[in-house]
Amino acid sequence: MSEPKFKRLPNHVGIIPDGNRRWAQQQGLSKEAGYDYGISPGFALYETCLEFGIPEITFYGFTQDNTKRPSAQKSAFQKACVDAVNVLTNKDASLLVVGNTDSPQFPKELLPYTTRKTYGKGSIKVNFLVNYGWKWDLNHAYNNKNSKHFNESIASIDISRIDLIVRWGNRRRLSGFLPVQSIYADFYVVDELWPDFKPEHFHQALHWYQDQDITLGG
Amino acid sequence: MSEPKFKRLPNHVGIIPDGNRRWAQQQGLSKEAGYDYGISPGFALYETCLEFGIPEITFYGFTQDNTKRPSAQKSAFQKACVDAVNVLTNKDASLLVVGNTDSPQFPKELLPYTTRKTYGKGSIKVNFLVNYGWKWDLNHAYNNKNSKHFNESIASIDISRIDLIVRWGNRRRLSGFLPVQSIYADFYVVDELWPDFKPEHFHQALHWYQDQDITLGG
Repeated sequence: MSEPKFKRLPNHVGIIPDGNRRWAQQQGLSKEAGYDYGISPGFALYETCLEFGIPEITFYGFTQDNTKRPSAQKSAFQKACVDAVNVLTNKDASLLVVGNTDSPQFPKELLPYTTRKTYGKGSIKVNFLVNYGWKWDLNHAYNNKNSKHFNESIASIDISRIDLIVRWGNRRRLSGFLPVQSIYADFYVVDELWPDFKPEHFHQALHWYQDQDITLGG
Repeated sequence: MSEPKFKRLPNHVGIIPDGNRRWAQQQGLSKEAGYDYGISPGFALYETCLEFGIPEITFYGFTQDNTKRPSAQKSAFQKACVDAVNVLTNKDASLLVVGNTDSPQFPKELLPYTTRKTYGKGSIKVNFLVNYGWKWDLNHAYNNKNSKHFNESIASIDISRIDLIVRWGNRRRLSGFLPVQSIYADFYVVDELWPDFKPEHFHQALHWYQDQDITLGG
């Protein structure tokens, strides 16, 4: 198959990989078994972005709201995040984990990655939101007033503005995904569940994105 | 036609009435002429919400980013907001205008409405965002620390959490619409331009909404 060509690509893509639990249930598995099947789609997507030269990608790992779920699920998505980050350190990436490290829900194994580190050539920025909370993110500014505008003091300040958000699993909401960076992001929803990821889903999102006008309200 | 029935309605609907300029151009009119045609759709929608007993509705009037547009357009959307609010004072509504009143872009005629006022029975809360800016909204908390959490100090604190956002005009982005209240809002996009509003568009959005699960991340 020939590679698709795009007249304009996003500089920064946000990924909401939803539907792991629904997928597991469809397969007759327990809900928590789904998260493990979400890792290899993430790397397929990462390879696609690398190939296209997309400079930055942010994955929604899990949120503080998600940690209210049953503990078997919580352990499973925490482990999936740790596994994904570990694999990524053997790839080509400038890696950053962003989330509330003060809470016991944050996997300790990921503490070293909360400052950005380069692996391989560092060709692409890859950000993981791990135990992320939108309130935590904005409260950080509120409690650490160290600049004129709140948006220069948020906890996720090292993550840039997002151009395109792609959510798998058919739900049309942002669910607290980086509210400041997502203000003018175009939002594309894939009907299929995340473990059923195909590169074509992402190609369709990019096809759609290239024809969106970028006005930023002007 | 019999009224549609819904098994669950949103408590609060956000409306992004986009496409006035594109509609005007399709009609061979100047871009700014479109805003005037956006007023009566707004009242048709208001009547629909009143009929269904939806308790709160927020209209995206214009933003601080929008005021960078040519002055003929700016005057036209400012006037459309003033006209809409004036008509509403003869209806049944608990009315509030929210926006940056410190700026000359805020129409002075609307200053009296920046505290909530009741007209008729006050059966429905109607909020208008006028010269609204997401940065302004969040910076208000940053600069007026008067509570423990930033989200209790934002400028739009009198507007509640939004369940459903409906955007006309086919663009799939929030464009700075109340980021805090929109965190878990379900987002429905109507292809038609706002001046082509039909009640059926809104019925379709409500039909879609009634089957969305509400998890708030749990």
